[in-house]
Amino acid sequence: MKSKLLLATLALTIAGTASAQLKTSDAIKFRQSGYTFMAWNMGKLKGMLIDNPASFNKEQAIAAANVIAATANSGMGALYVPGSDKGKGWETTRAKAALFTDKEGVGKVAVAFNKEANELAKVAATGDAAALKVQFGKVGESCKACHEKFREEEHNHEH
Amino acid sequence: MKSKLLLATLALTIAGTASAQLKTSDAIKFRQSGYTFMAWNMGKLKGMLIDNPASFNKEQAIAAANVIAATANSGMGALYVPGSDKGKGWETTRAKAALFTDKEGVGKVAVAFNKEANELAKVAATGDAAALKVQFGKVGESCKACHEKFREEEHNHEH
Repeated sequence: MKSKLLLATLALTIAGTASAQLKTSDAIKFRQSGYTFMAWNMGKLKGMLIDNPASFNKEQAIAAANVIAATANSGMGALYVPGSDKGKGWETTRAKAALFTDKEGVGKVAVAFNKEANELAKVAATGDAAALKVQFGKVGESCKACHEKFREEEHNHEH
Repeated sequence: MKSKLLLATLALTIAGTASAQLKTSDAIKFRQSGYTFMAWNMGKLKGMLIDNPASFNKEQAIAAANVIAATANSGMGALYVPGSDKGKGWETTRAKAALFTDKEGVGKVAVAFNKEANELAKVAATGDAAALKVQFGKVGESCKACHEKFREEEHNHEH
């Protein structure tokens, strides 16, 4: 576990260097885009695994899971550039200050999400809807674990 | 080619059915997120293939190419719900009306982008930076072909 955390931290650092010239507003916009696009794909999986299992479609499940895994593997840590704990991308960031200071806590949720997202793509490829539903739940838990610790509540209540 | 276009159209139709309940503003937000997140990953590839070849990193190239391929395969056609030729997601949509009427033209650019994006992931996996640079150019051309035909110029000039 320790070495995994170190590896994840190293990956974030390297990616961070490559993107050092990113504007704060662009970095926030890119990360909000990544999470929002994952949300669409999680929504599609929820639709076919929970809301309406009769609509399960293996190819669409694989496609959605692949987006989530590829996004998880894309080095989004590089988008948490110094100073981007405050600021506006598409909207004002909801990142908590702790996301920029609690390296060990962030490493843990990042490694957990990465693991579950990659497993999601693997399980989707088997076409086993029941197993995918279980793994979908695990991914959702790993999203939630990070949100609860490192994301502010919504600024306004549209829903 | 004809059958490929038909298949692409069919895929869009099926995916469209599954997402029929999407709100117009959410559909626009999701597609803007997908394109913006791809733009970040295209930017990373440009950085390591063109701007600063010394920074080429195989793992990061694969990660970026996988995001682009997974996004291309995700059935974004479903996000062009009826009525979403006008409206606001993160910002006002720049989709031209023709994107909702010129089915054959849209099919052509969609199939071309899909092909080049999947090839990008394949070439990235080989670790051949020179070949990847060529394929990166082809993906960029396929993006541009769609933008020129189906996307309005920027509404405001921030840059």
